[in-house]
Amino acid sequence: MTIDADRGILKHVLNDVADLDRVFHALADPGRRQMLERLGRGPASVSELGRPLSMSLAAVVQHVQILEASGLVRTQKVGRTRACSLEPVTLRSAEHWLSERRTLVERRLDKLGEYLAETADRAASDDDHAPTQKENR
Amino acid sequence: MTIDADRGILKHVLNDVADLDRVFHALADPGRRQMLERLGRGPASVSELGRPLSMSLAAVVQHVQILEASGLVRTQKVGRTRACSLEPVTLRSAEHWLSERRTLVERRLDKLGEYLAETADRAASDDDHAPTQKENR
Repeated sequence: MTIDADRGILKHVLNDVADLDRVFHALADPGRRQMLERLGRGPASVSELGRPLSMSLAAVVQHVQILEASGLVRTQKVGRTRACSLEPVTLRSAEHWLSERRTLVERRLDKLGEYLAETADRAASDDDHAPTQKENR
Repeated sequence: MTIDADRGILKHVLNDVADLDRVFHALADPGRRQMLERLGRGPASVSELGRPLSMSLAAVVQHVQILEASGLVRTQKVGRTRACSLEPVTLRSAEHWLSERRTLVERRLDKLGEYLAETADRAASDDDHAPTQKENR
């Protein structure tokens, strides 16, 4: 995949509010996050994803469908099983939304810190040069 | 805030599964994301956050409470209003969870790409050096 294609998909994902609703909703469940953690280590079948979770296969299938609808997971029929894999572009789009907000806040906090440090320096230097009350008389 | 303190909070947030449930649940609503986008531009009162949204003040307050419980927003009583601001550490913890998964997948895809390129190179070079059928006879 070229970087341009990647950016194109990213832009599409970010532009669609409903897409981010689905992505964050999919991420809000601990069982689904556990499935994503497993897929981070490599593709897996639906039953492999369900193995460490104490739930019925029907429940596992439903979770996988939610993950697939969100774009976080891609599935492919391989013989009689369904192979699942993580979709990094969707992960990146959610990360991107978060980092944009965070960067804005951090930049403002940095500026505030600089301003306060400068003000403190100026106050200290004014104190050094200010004539004492005695000299003023 | 020092980097160590930042890491300490980050680790705490990441260790608590329920915390990430709350963070991603809070992010799954378009109205709440709009509030976070507004707070990305600077602190705001609850009523300022609600102004662009077509909902009652009671509904706005409820959304702010969900954002506050998730740790994405901090609020502070200032006179008769409540000032809200974004909490970058919580944004970073969600980003971190996503980027860990994404990096694992991307690294594996890169390795697969390298392997395929090497295999293709070797096949091409084998073809160059292989005796033709005519020479074999």
